[in-house]
Amino acid sequence: MTQENFEIFSNNLSHLDNQGQAQMVDVSGKASTVRQAVAAARVRMLPETFAAIQAGNAPKGDVLGTTRLAGIMAAKHTASLIPLCHPLPLQKIEVQVTPCPDLPGYQIEATVKTKAETGVEMEALTAVSVAALTLYDMAKALEKSIQIESIRLISKTGGKSGDYCQSD
Amino acid sequence: MTQENFEIFSNNLSHLDNQGQAQMVDVSGKASTVRQAVAAARVRMLPETFAAIQAGNAPKGDVLGTTRLAGIMAAKHTASLIPLCHPLPLQKIEVQVTPCPDLPGYQIEATVKTKAETGVEMEALTAVSVAALTLYDMAKALEKSIQIESIRLISKTGGKSGDYCQSD
Amino acid sequence: MTQENFEIFSNNLSHLDNQGQAQMVDVSGKASTVRQAVAAARVRMLPETFAAIQAGNAPKGDVLGTTRLAGIMAAKHTASLIPLCHPLPLQKIEVQVTPCPDLPGYQIEATVKTKAETGVEMEALTAVSVAALTLYDMAKALEKSIQIESIRLISKTGGKSGDYCQSD
Amino acid sequence: MTQENFEIFSNNLSHLDNQGQAQMVDVSGKASTVRQAVAAARVRMLPETFAAIQAGNAPKGDVLGTTRLAGIMAAKHTASLIPLCHPLPLQKIEVQVTPCPDLPGYQIEATVKTKAETGVEMEALTAVSVAALTLYDMAKALEKSIQIESIRLISKTGGKSGDYCQSD
Amino acid sequence: MTQENFEIFSNNLSHLDNQGQAQMVDVSGKASTVRQAVAAARVRMLPETFAAIQAGNAPKGDVLGTTRLAGIMAAKHTASLIPLCHPLPLQKIEVQVTPCPDLPGYQIEATVKTKAETGVEMEALTAVSVAALTLYDMAKALEKSIQIESIRLISKTGGKSGDYCQSD
Amino acid sequence: MTQENFEIFSNNLSHLDNQGQAQMVDVSGKASTVRQAVAAARVRMLPETFAAIQAGNAPKGDVLGTTRLAGIMAAKHTASLIPLCHPLPLQKIEVQVTPCPDLPGYQIEATVKTKAETGVEMEALTAVSVAALTLYDMAKALEKSIQIESIRLISKTGGKSGDYCQSD
Repeated sequence: MTQENFEIFSNNLSHLDNQGQAQMVDVSGKASTVRQAVAAARVRMLPETFAAIQAGNAPKGDVLGTTRLAGIMAAKHTASLIPLCHPLPLQKIEVQVTPCPDLPGYQIEATVKTKAETGVEMEALTAVSVAALTLYDMAKALEKSIQIESIRLISKTGGKSGDYCQSD
Repeated sequence: MTQENFEIFSNNLSHLDNQGQAQMVDVSGKASTVRQAVAAARVRMLPETFAAIQAGNAPKGDVLGTTRLAGIMAAKHTASLIPLCHPLPLQKIEVQVTPCPDLPGYQIEATVKTKAETGVEMEALTAVSVAALTLYDMAKALEKSIQIESIRLISKTGGKSGDYCQSD
Repeated sequence: MTQENFEIFSNNLSHLDNQGQAQMVDVSGKASTVRQAVAAARVRMLPETFAAIQAGNAPKGDVLGTTRLAGIMAAKHTASLIPLCHPLPLQKIEVQVTPCPDLPGYQIEATVKTKAETGVEMEALTAVSVAALTLYDMAKALEKSIQIESIRLISKTGGKSGDYCQSD
Repeated sequence: MTQENFEIFSNNLSHLDNQGQAQMVDVSGKASTVRQAVAAARVRMLPETFAAIQAGNAPKGDVLGTTRLAGIMAAKHTASLIPLCHPLPLQKIEVQVTPCPDLPGYQIEATVKTKAETGVEMEALTAVSVAALTLYDMAKALEKSIQIESIRLISKTGGKSGDYCQSD
Repeated sequence: MTQENFEIFSNNLSHLDNQGQAQMVDVSGKASTVRQAVAAARVRMLPETFAAIQAGNAPKGDVLGTTRLAGIMAAKHTASLIPLCHPLPLQKIEVQVTPCPDLPGYQIEATVKTKAETGVEMEALTAVSVAALTLYDMAKALEKSIQIESIRLISKTGGKSGDYCQSD
Repeated sequence: MTQENFEIFSNNLSHLDNQGQAQMVDVSGKASTVRQAVAAARVRMLPETFAAIQAGNAPKGDVLGTTRLAGIMAAKHTASLIPLCHPLPLQKIEVQVTPCPDLPGYQIEATVKTKAETGVEMEALTAVSVAALTLYDMAKALEKSIQIESIRLISKTGGKSGDYCQSD
């Protein structure tokens, strides 16, 4: 690549400066607006594992409740985990864990909101990822081949770059 | 379920006590042995995103280097992120990020080792998950539809429950 | 409870959504105002333990100084410790540790201030709790039966729900 | 105090060196043995607050489940919160939250185990404290005058200084 | 000192209240403005150590890239590390590591920006310090006598106390 | 460099694998032995700054006490701050802050001990660095040109690579 092309490219690759070095880029010139992001993940397992969690979760709710809480708490650690993420105040974190008998397994969805100069996609993605890992952790004695699939951004609103909604 | 069946089930669902409550279970009776776990994840993207990262990463290595480091550091935070994980000393964390032109995208693999009373599956899975999230973060200005796929345990050795190797 | 009653109840139990699930609720619609909270705790001990700390603390101040600092630093970790607390910038944290010969023991009081969409009661309560635990830690070789008592909110100002002042 | 008396005193005040300075003292000469500590706390509230939590907690268990998890996770952060605590691997953390209609309120009890050169009293006390704070947080919209009472060590086993059991 | 003189002095020693006690002082009355700080450090080593790092860093950039990332991530932990620092949102963190053949060694420089009621000198100083420690860590098998030198504030802008620029 | 030479070099540069990639290297084959490291730093300031701290510190000890505590607590966060450091249990952390009228300023020294498969040089160096930053933070309203100098390893004992003692 020529240096000129490289600079164009770097500007598109978040967090790289003109020499291609990773940096936490300056967002102080951006407007502080309400921004929201929604992310999702799936946890796929054997039918008998799914049946066992569904049965066992009934009396106390601890498996899915623990999963949900782990996702909420992880969203607050995003800036510590993802090296170039900006630390932001967060104003809402909601995590839903939905049984999907057809998968079989669980769909996890997280919604995160801030009023800040940059968005919260990484917070929402971190929430669903850690929630999914926690579900794995609680069920791994039943089945080690559980897979976490399709961690993705569903939508993003607020901010100058425009809204985004996953096409299907 | 009868109470008896529930207790059998609870013993299989890691971290639930006999009342179905989430707890960090007692591992003090287990032997402290060398244990290793290997986990993997895939990050799938559009061909042009893949080409841009490959081209842009060449001069400095910062995209894949940052990805790898984020995975290594995250493994050390596993017990803070996953509510019922035991805090353990770790003796090796290795993360590899391999370009896969056919995906297109990247394969991430993490190997973690400890000498302890319980295994390090969650540390290896956390490493690949956070590495994948970091790669997403660095490329998200190029493409928001990047997906993280197939986070899974590849193998596990050491410990009384026997070795595990993902069947293919 | 009927579903209608349950929803009324859930709205009163902070952090539960309409299904009774714990969530970090949306505060983005609330005004960002200066808010302050004051909390207190007491640490009760045997007269000889109190006398020893008072005597020993004189030359260097390390027992009470360490107690105060631990409270200040803990207030900054509140959102990591309390699952559904919003992460907030904090603009003042003050902790006072006062000897109470009549208790005998120490009274701990913390004042925390923010300019944000939600209050800092939990930050003030966390500060006094961890300060009290630290005092226990430093004196536990003298007496294991030290008790931490009466952790409570003293007052709260700012915010739409109105000021609060502990009645006596 | 004479210097000699001060040194005797300092040796009894955990974590002070001979100049009365706070330090994380050397435990490398102590034997690594299995050690366990049990701590407790009470959360006292108005009868109507208690009734509301009991009613509302039924369908999902999220209030008490969140309380329990917060205590478990906090125990793992003890060495970060309490300045002079040794960082230790932990092998068991169990938190129980028991309704006490007569209080009215909740009794919280935590049991922590390690195999290490020093004990886990502070981990058990931190677990019950943060669990109690979390219960306050979830119920504070119902009643701000909830009090956390009687945080104390119930028992301690393992270690050279001998076992301890709270006299009643 | 007289009490009057002591109060004047305390007002100048950041973070001490009128009794000389360390506190996180109230900044809620200050204006929230854009503030920036630049700090620097040097890492001095033997010529052969410098030559080895320069040669070895070429193919992958991992030594200097890891150094830079560690500095960026550490800036985000400043309020956890420095007891009386205010937790702030950060809007830019940039770390540069420059080879200095004449030293021989490396010059590290960090720029941090916020929009807040207080400045980010400590964030910039923490970034260069941890970056320098990380460089030491990666090279310590080659030479244990590497020294970190001259950690200092280069400049500071924004805020009522006026700009500062290191005189040379 | 030839690949062969590069591999020799990589083995000497801690934490690089054979491809020059940063990794947290495997120490599970090393013996767990008692290891100790001592590190030091100097904080240099104007004579009037030094005089003010010395005068102001007298009644309460909070400046130097806070400095010392910050160093102790930071040592426990070393593995979170330094990307490739192994997380270790620590058995002693001692920090001394000594006034040096001739500097003028303060000498900071930290001693850290573990029983583990790898050494604690980075923990001792991190302790003195963060202690020095904390002293800067508390005195920066008096003088912004304070410098932290000569962060270095004084000695290291235990471990196969042999003892090290700084030559003078």
